[in-house]
Amino acid sequence: MSDMSPIYLYDQLTAQGETVRSLKAQKAPKVDIDAAVQLLLKMKVDFKRVTSQDYKAGCPPVDCAISNDHKEAVDGDDQVDPWNVSTTSAKGVDYEKLIVRFGSSKIDEELVDRITRITGKVTHHFLRRGIFFSHRDMHQILDAYENQKSFYLYTGRGPSSEAMHVGHLIPFIFTKWLQDVFDVPLVIQLTDDEKYLWKDLSQEDCYRYAVENAKDIIACGFDVNKTFIFSDLDYMGSSPSFYRNVVKVQKHVTFNQVKGIFGFTDSDCIGKISFPAIQAAPSFSSSFPQIFSGRTDVQCLIPCAIDQDPYFRMTRDVAPRIGFLKPALLHSTFFPALQGAQTKMSASDPNTTIFLTDSPKQIKNKINKHAFSGGKDTVEDHRKFGGNPDVDVSFMYLTFFLEDDEQLEKIRQDYASGDLLTGELKKLLIETLQPMIAAHQEKRKHVTEDIVKQFMTPRKLDFKC
Amino acid sequence: MSDMSPIYLYDQLTAQGETVRSLKAQKAPKVDIDAAVQLLLKMKVDFKRVTSQDYKAGCPPVDCAISNDHKEAVDGDDQVDPWNVSTTSAKGVDYEKLIVRFGSSKIDEELVDRITRITGKVTHHFLRRGIFFSHRDMHQILDAYENQKSFYLYTGRGPSSEAMHVGHLIPFIFTKWLQDVFDVPLVIQLTDDEKYLWKDLSQEDCYRYAVENAKDIIACGFDVNKTFIFSDLDYMGSSPSFYRNVVKVQKHVTFNQVKGIFGFTDSDCIGKISFPAIQAAPSFSSSFPQIFSGRTDVQCLIPCAIDQDPYFRMTRDVAPRIGFLKPALLHSTFFPALQGAQTKMSASDPNTTIFLTDSPKQIKNKINKHAFSGGKDTVEDHRKFGGNPDVDVSFMYLTFFLEDDEQLEKIRQDYASGDLLTGELKKLLIETLQPMIAAHQEKRKHVTEDIVKQFMTPRKLDFKC
Repeated sequence: MSDMSPIYLYDQLTAQGETVRSLKAQKAPKVDIDAAVQLLLKMKVDFKRVTSQDYKAGCPPVDCAISNDHKEAVDGDDQVDPWNVSTTSAKGVDYEKLIVRFGSSKIDEELVDRITRITGKVTHHFLRRGIFFSHRDMHQILDAYENQKSFYLYTGRGPSSEAMHVGHLIPFIFTKWLQDVFDVPLVIQLTDDEKYLWKDLSQEDCYRYAVENAKDIIACGFDVNKTFIFSDLDYMGSSPSFYRNVVKVQKHVTFNQVKGIFGFTDSDCIGKISFPAIQAAPSFSSSFPQIFSGRTDVQCLIPCAIDQDPYFRMTRDVAPRIGFLKPALLHSTFFPALQGAQTKMSASDPNTTIFLTDSPKQIKNKINKHAFSGGKDTVEDHRKFGGNPDVDVSFMYLTFFLEDDEQLEKIRQDYASGDLLTGELKKLLIETLQPMIAAHQEKRKHVTEDIVKQFMTPRKLDFKC
Repeated sequence: MSDMSPIYLYDQLTAQGETVRSLKAQKAPKVDIDAAVQLLLKMKVDFKRVTSQDYKAGCPPVDCAISNDHKEAVDGDDQVDPWNVSTTSAKGVDYEKLIVRFGSSKIDEELVDRITRITGKVTHHFLRRGIFFSHRDMHQILDAYENQKSFYLYTGRGPSSEAMHVGHLIPFIFTKWLQDVFDVPLVIQLTDDEKYLWKDLSQEDCYRYAVENAKDIIACGFDVNKTFIFSDLDYMGSSPSFYRNVVKVQKHVTFNQVKGIFGFTDSDCIGKISFPAIQAAPSFSSSFPQIFSGRTDVQCLIPCAIDQDPYFRMTRDVAPRIGFLKPALLHSTFFPALQGAQTKMSASDPNTTIFLTDSPKQIKNKINKHAFSGGKDTVEDHRKFGGNPDVDVSFMYLTFFLEDDEQLEKIRQDYASGDLLTGELKKLLIETLQPMIAAHQEKRKHVTEDIVKQFMTPRKLDFKC
C-alpha cells in the first residue's frame, strides 16, 4: 500500500534538483553537495526504471508508457500494482480487461442478488454500481455462511501521512457494511513498517500516522467488539503466532516469485523483498489466536482496491502449501483524482482530491477549480450536445457518495442531455460532500486516545463460529 | 548458523536417491514418485551449486573445490561462511589468511596481556592458545571498560537438532568465562526461525530443539541474573523494539549486498534473504529495552566462530547508518571433526565427533575408532620418527579441553618425539572427555523446565552501566 507513481517520482526529483542547486549556490560543504547529487542520480535511475523515460525538468510524465519490470503490467496502457496505477483513458482503468488479466471473477448480478438474499439487507450501492466489481471465491464464503460457517474480514491501509482523503474511505465504508450485514469480526492492518521501508520517513512518523489514520478509520463506525486494528510495528512484536505465520509464508516464496509479482530488483532492500509475507499473514486466522482461539480454519474475506490483488494472489498460492485456507477477495475500482481518472489518488498533493480535513470552503473551491469536467466549452454547446458523465469527475464522485439510485440516474441523464450544466453538477457534489465530511470530522472528534487504544489492543472479539 | 556442507548435501542426496528407488520398487503412486524425483533433481542442483561438481553416487565430495558464488569465498582452498566451512589442509583452515581476507585483527600477546591485566584473572586457555584468534574493536571495548563504561555479550546457536556436540560448547564455555570476569549481561539468540527456513523441519521441531539446546547451554553455568536466552520465533513476537530494529536493518541492506555476502540467489526464499537482519538486531542494545531500559549506547561484544563473521560485517556496516554502535567481535577457530580438520562439525553424523549425550563407552569407542591420528603406521616407525600433533585430532581436542598448559606441552613434545604412542594419546583424551561430559550431563539433569523458562523470559538483568 504505497505510491511510487511516475508523477510522485517526478515531483521528488524536481525538488531534489532544487536542493542541489541551492546547496551549490550557498557554497555548502563538498560532502553535502556530493551526497545530494548522489541521491539525485539514484532518483533519476528510479525514474527511468518506472517510466522508461529520462527525466526532463519541467516535463512531467503524464502520458508516458510504463515500463514493465514485472509480469503483471502488460495490457494496453493500464498499469496496476500496489505502487503504480495508471491509464491513458479518461474513463479510467479498463476493469473488464483487468479481470481477465488477474484471473479473478466479475461480480455479476447473480452474486449481488445472492448477497441480498442471504443478508436480507439492501445491498450496498458500491456493489449495485460495480464499484466493487471483481471477486475471488465469494460464492465459497456464501456457501459456508449459509451452512452456519462464519468467516472474518481483513482490510488495511498504508499510513504514509496523517492526511486521508475520501478515496481512502471506500474500502472502509464497504467493510463496515459487510461487518454489519454478516455480523463478523474484522482485522485492519496498518502497514507502518511498509511505509518506513518504502518512504523517506522515520519509524516514529510512520507509527504516528498509523495511529492518526486509525482515528479516521474508527470514525467510519466500526464496532469495537468486532474490530481489531493493528500497526505492524507493534503487532509483529506482540504476537508470536503472527510472526510464525509470516515466516511460514517467507519460507514458501522465492525472490524470483516476488520479482515476477512486484517487480522488485536486486537493488531493493531486503525489507521490501520480504514484506509481502507480512501483508499475507493476516489472511490466516491462526495469526490472531486471541480472536479465533488458535483455529486455522476460519476463512478470510478481503475487501480491497484491485491494486492490492498481487499480494493476495501470492497469498492464495502459498496458503495450501502451508496448510491454510485461501482468502477470498472483493476488489474495488480506483477512486479518481479530481483532475481525471488517469491516475490513482495520492495523499501528497492536496489539490488532487478532497481530504477528510477539508473545510466546506475548501471542498467547494477544489471541486469548482479542479474537478475535471465532461461538459462542453460553452453553455450553448452544452445545452445542444450534452455533457459526458463517463469522464466527468464530479459525476464519478457522486457514484461513490450519492446513495439514491434514482437521483443519480436522473443527474446522469440530465447531464448527458445538456439539461444539467457543469456548475450545477459540481454544486450537487459539493452539497453531497460538505455534510458527509463535516459528519466525519464530528465523529472523528469523539475518537479519543482511549478508544484508539481499545481498538488497537490484541484481545478477544465477538465471534460466532 | 547452519550447515550446508558438501558432505551434508551428499548424504542427503544419497538418501533421497534411495527413497526414489524404494518408491519405484514398491510401485508407489506416480504422484509420490514424481515428487521424490523432483526433490532429488533440486538437491542435485544445490549440490552442483555448492561443489561445482555433478553428484556421483558412492563418490563423496571430499577434495572438491568449492564454487564461489559470493565474494567471501576466494582464498586458496578454504571456504568459510555461515553454511560452508571447508579446507583441503589436514591442519585445518589457514586462519592467518582468513584474518587478512576478512579484515579483522589478530588477537596478539599484547591484547591477551591487557585482558589479563584489566580483569585481574588468569586468562582463559582459549585465548592463550589462539582458539579465539581474531577480533574486531576489542581494544575499544577495553578502553570503555577501563572508563567504567560497561558492555554486553551476545552469542547464539542455530538449533538444527536436539543433539549438541562438544564443538558447540566452545563459544558458550568462553562466553561464560567472559561473563564471569567482566561481570556483564549476556543475550543468547537461538535462531529457530533460521533453521526452519533453511532445513526441512517444522517450526514446532525447531522451537523444541531451541528449548532442548537451551538446557545444554544453561548447563554451562550461566548466571540467570545476567543471562537472557531467546528463541527468535518467540522473541520476535514478544518485543516491538526488537522487530523495529530488525526492520531498520532490513531497510538499509539490499539484495545485492546479501547476495555478495552470503551467496543468496534468486531461487532462495524471501525468508532467507531477509534473515541476516534478524541475526544482526541483537547487536544493538535497544533490541532489549527490558535489560538496557531503552539505551542505544551500550556496546555489544560477540564471541562466535569465525564463520559467523559475515553476519556481523554486514551489521557493522549498517550500524552507523541507523544510529547504533558497531558490535565488537572475538572469533574462534573451528572445532575439527574426529575424521580430521578438513570439515566443520555436523550434528547430523554421530560419528564425526563427541556428543553431549555420549556415554563413557561411546566416547572411548568413537575416539579409538574414528579420531584421525598423526602417528606413524607402525609402533617402530612412530618410536623412530615421532607423530605429528598438528594433524592429530586427539591432540587438537586436548588443546580445547585440557586446561593444564604444561601437561599439554609435554604431551605435544612426547608425541612428536615418539615417546607417546597414538593409543596412549587417545587414552589421555578419553580420560579428559569422559568426566567432562559426565559432569555436563549431571548439570543438565538439574536444568528443569522452570529454570529454562526463567532464562527465556524477557526481563530485567543485573547490569551496572
